[in-house]
Amino acid sequence: MARTIGIIGIGHVGVTTAFNLVSKGIADKLVLIDQKAELAEGESYDLKDALGGLPTYTDIVVNDYDALKDADVVISAVGNIGAISNGDRIGETKTSKAALDDVAPKLKASGFHGVLLDITNPCDAVTSYWQYLLDLPKSQIIGTGTSLDTYRMRRAVAETLHVNVADVRGYNMGEHGESQFTAWSTVRVNNEPIAEYAKVDYDQLADAARAGGWKIYNAKHYTSYGIATIATEMAQAIISDAKRIFPCANYDPEFGIAIGHPATIGKLGVVNTPELKLTDDERAKYVHSAGIIKDTLEKMK
Amino acid sequence: MARTIGIIGIGHVGVTTAFNLVSKGIADKLVLIDQKAELAEGESYDLKDALGGLPTYTDIVVNDYDALKDADVVISAVGNIGAISNGDRIGETKTSKAALDDVAPKLKASGFHGVLLDITNPCDAVTSYWQYLLDLPKSQIIGTGTSLDTYRMRRAVAETLHVNVADVRGYNMGEHGESQFTAWSTVRVNNEPIAEYAKVDYDQLADAARAGGWKIYNAKHYTSYGIATIATEMAQAIISDAKRIFPCANYDPEFGIAIGHPATIGKLGVVNTPELKLTDDERAKYVHSAGIIKDTLEKMK
Amino acid sequence: MARTIGIIGIGHVGVTTAFNLVSKGIADKLVLIDQKAELAEGESYDLKDALGGLPTYTDIVVNDYDALKDADVVISAVGNIGAISNGDRIGETKTSKAALDDVAPKLKASGFHGVLLDITNPCDAVTSYWQYLLDLPKSQIIGTGTSLDTYRMRRAVAETLHVNVADVRGYNMGEHGESQFTAWSTVRVNNEPIAEYAKVDYDQLADAARAGGWKIYNAKHYTSYGIATIATEMAQAIISDAKRIFPCANYDPEFGIAIGHPATIGKLGVVNTPELKLTDDERAKYVHSAGIIKDTLEKMK
Amino acid sequence: MARTIGIIGIGHVGVTTAFNLVSKGIADKLVLIDQKAELAEGESYDLKDALGGLPTYTDIVVNDYDALKDADVVISAVGNIGAISNGDRIGETKTSKAALDDVAPKLKASGFHGVLLDITNPCDAVTSYWQYLLDLPKSQIIGTGTSLDTYRMRRAVAETLHVNVADVRGYNMGEHGESQFTAWSTVRVNNEPIAEYAKVDYDQLADAARAGGWKIYNAKHYTSYGIATIATEMAQAIISDAKRIFPCANYDPEFGIAIGHPATIGKLGVVNTPELKLTDDERAKYVHSAGIIKDTLEKMK
Repeated sequence: MARTIGIIGIGHVGVTTAFNLVSKGIADKLVLIDQKAELAEGESYDLKDALGGLPTYTDIVVNDYDALKDADVVISAVGNIGAISNGDRIGETKTSKAALDDVAPKLKASGFHGVLLDITNPCDAVTSYWQYLLDLPKSQIIGTGTSLDTYRMRRAVAETLHVNVADVRGYNMGEHGESQFTAWSTVRVNNEPIAEYAKVDYDQLADAARAGGWKIYNAKHYTSYGIATIATEMAQAIISDAKRIFPCANYDPEFGIAIGHPATIGKLGVVNTPELKLTDDERAKYVHSAGIIKDTLEKMK
Repeated sequence: MARTIGIIGIGHVGVTTAFNLVSKGIADKLVLIDQKAELAEGESYDLKDALGGLPTYTDIVVNDYDALKDADVVISAVGNIGAISNGDRIGETKTSKAALDDVAPKLKASGFHGVLLDITNPCDAVTSYWQYLLDLPKSQIIGTGTSLDTYRMRRAVAETLHVNVADVRGYNMGEHGESQFTAWSTVRVNNEPIAEYAKVDYDQLADAARAGGWKIYNAKHYTSYGIATIATEMAQAIISDAKRIFPCANYDPEFGIAIGHPATIGKLGVVNTPELKLTDDERAKYVHSAGIIKDTLEKMK
Repeated sequence: MARTIGIIGIGHVGVTTAFNLVSKGIADKLVLIDQKAELAEGESYDLKDALGGLPTYTDIVVNDYDALKDADVVISAVGNIGAISNGDRIGETKTSKAALDDVAPKLKASGFHGVLLDITNPCDAVTSYWQYLLDLPKSQIIGTGTSLDTYRMRRAVAETLHVNVADVRGYNMGEHGESQFTAWSTVRVNNEPIAEYAKVDYDQLADAARAGGWKIYNAKHYTSYGIATIATEMAQAIISDAKRIFPCANYDPEFGIAIGHPATIGKLGVVNTPELKLTDDERAKYVHSAGIIKDTLEKMK
Repeated sequence: MARTIGIIGIGHVGVTTAFNLVSKGIADKLVLIDQKAELAEGESYDLKDALGGLPTYTDIVVNDYDALKDADVVISAVGNIGAISNGDRIGETKTSKAALDDVAPKLKASGFHGVLLDITNPCDAVTSYWQYLLDLPKSQIIGTGTSLDTYRMRRAVAETLHVNVADVRGYNMGEHGESQFTAWSTVRVNNEPIAEYAKVDYDQLADAARAGGWKIYNAKHYTSYGIATIATEMAQAIISDAKRIFPCANYDPEFGIAIGHPATIGKLGVVNTPELKLTDDERAKYVHSAGIIKDTLEKMK
């Protein structure tokens, strides 16, 4: 019935994701929405120009909430990513809350009943707030969360141990923010537990992963290609009902919030969450992250 | 022997092209070079993070001119695109000249002997200046030029006449700048000459094509997705020796400059330029554009 | 809502199309149906094995007509392609008729209401017979028809004139069979009418196009990659509602049959058919083809 | 320098791989060679027809060994796959030996110095025989081997445990033949050792994997899509120097033969082989397989 994807918030992250979806012919209909109507419209022209060099066609619709009615996925990339630049978490949370308070009623009114995929930060609290605002099952509201941190950990491990990133598996978990952590007990290199593969300094690896993110951020004041790629990967898994696992922001009933932990993702969002055997230390970090997210969420409500 | 592509100038256009090449697995080795070393490095991390979600691998190398020695294509996207924002053509030309004067000796020293594809504006004069600076056959130095204007014309015609952009063919020519023009005698809609297909107001169509560009520019102060797509299309034609036609900036011996007109592009750059039967009016516009480019080139030399 | 594509008839052509759809991540759900249940099942395992090396997921369903209820496209590749090998047109028609008589009631019963794309030969008569059997608007029932002959003409022209096939445009028309013809008045090379581009012997070119087909056929007793590619291209145009033109088998009310002529294709099948200005000679060939198709259709009814 | 890939042996497996490479724009130049000159030529026309519907270009060359001189990869798919149908292993070995004896001198004479990727069965012995015949480092001669069995194991585990094949990792090893085995100690489901993930009957799973292969084989007397996909994946890893791990046929100095075990693959073939901690039982099966391969190789020499 054709793939329809909506993106609300056409900043750098939103539009890079849009380009990826158009350029690879993934979306049949792409709905771009931004508070700044001219921004969404301007970007839509840049994307439409690109159609001249592509073998596939995407119907690009601008600023039309009604077009989200039967969307398979709506990606939320609203908010002022610039707010982070001052390390001003409270400011960022306020901006994001304001954006959701504005957007959520319009999205509800559209009759949207697909999967909401949040990118907006602070990702876990914002995903939780979406779950609070929308009349959809919590399982249909997820966030990219620590999926991106997982890419970064894998990149850092691959570079350090001279292996291909495809041969590094495992999960980063918790809050997509300062308290995120690598669950090293889950990490495999060349299909072996990392602890058996090589003597490594986990703190150094974690630093290398984080340092990469900061290098990007310092260079351009936002990050876009990693996040657009994971958003695309998750959108594809949703639409094709792949039932693949992503360490993304999704509801944890124990804490009553969305938080980064592995979940099987399909067309209805979260299908199930595989049981993890974390170490005590990892479990403690997870609980710590949950507390931070809960606090942030309370402030948003 | 693996595809090696270099990009010099990692601003919005350069890096969007880089993302496209990595994300689609087009380049085996990608060399990113920028005067601001940390910018190229930062962007390289964002692209390397993305590898975690891609089925293909690209070796991403940063700020290493030596790595360009056997590159198939080097895309030049140097210069301060911001200079345009004031409509300050002279400032833009100065900035671009300074960038080329800095980069060209390093590129020569690398032993590069592939095809140089220029995106930097003013595209035709800058492409001509590359031809002046490098010890390569002029046929190996081309620019995206009016290929982008052609995308825009096709988009505008498609929207106005309610056809798919794939069914609009033809060429924009001349200077990639204010004096560019659509050679309407070459335009076919649904495989018919546009004049026979429908009564249309050419000036209105040209305005619609231009207006799209301005909408993008006003929204974000640069354009990136159309230009990255045409740069990718041309790079692919070069590497695969496709001998396909692009209305790009390439040498016209009659005027002694590079100017937008159709050329057959393969692994050695321009293979030949198909003869065009322009109307007198189109020919006059072309000559007019050539004069402007020549003037700009003189100022650069 | 996810892309669902059905393929009925899992011979060489059907399964090659299936592989293309799976391998490129085009279909979210793919329904494979064959009279020989074990053939469809066997091929489904080969395709499922391939999923291990693909970044995308396709849900592959076998021999379940109910799964076609909400399919965007059903591709019909039923019949015994081997029947052609004897040049036994009558035998082929009988086999195809028998296959449709078996399949059509089941397809109707499924509640299918998308676009039927026929590949089975004799393509135009069989497409017409589908239009007769199914309770769908004729515009929703099309065939690949002379789209494949068009590929072959373009390939032959490109090889003969040393240009890229992307720079050869135009249409083959009429019956996808012996009476098909190239409408040379529509053919453009490097965007020029072929008559102006070069002195060519049209008969020789037509022979070269046909000869390619026979070389394939003699080598393996069927053809598959060209036809699977055009079927994929058309399926994508349908699903993305591209409204692109294909010279495919579609209903011509003047003759009351489906016959190869350009049509704009979207999610509801034929949107419109652009008016063509054929030469008298081309028109005569078209009328001749129509007569043959009509005769064959009568025999099927 | 453009990607050049050769395929020797244009049967079902060879040509399906060729189609995959052309259809996805992976090869810039593709050299197709077959003893039956008309077969390679016929298939090349089918692939060239397909270029009419593709956004990329591949230069398709037929029956020209000289064109392999600078090939990155040559895929060997020679031999009469039909020989298997009688379960006649000895006949198959004879046919394959004869094919290699014919082809190897011509390949040597071409000056080919890239990576040879063997698909021909019995894959391990044949890969070993290639290592014997060619003057290339053994590390540059590999075979798909148990990479395909690994796909099948992953497919069977995924279906049985209702997870996505992307979330099943691990290796099949040994002889790509009756004595191949799954090293269950390496298998992870949803990132957990399979033994901890679920109670499963390994024999039943192994049967399910094998049964899939036989369903394909019984349906069409060969298998093609899984094998073409793994061959493509490996060719891409070679060309892009990905240094990714594949459980493929590669030289094991302990036994003096090529045998299926994990190896890191890059542009020079095998970069290294990660140490595996097999169970005693798995080790015994591996040694058993090695013996069989050695016997077969002796008969070929």
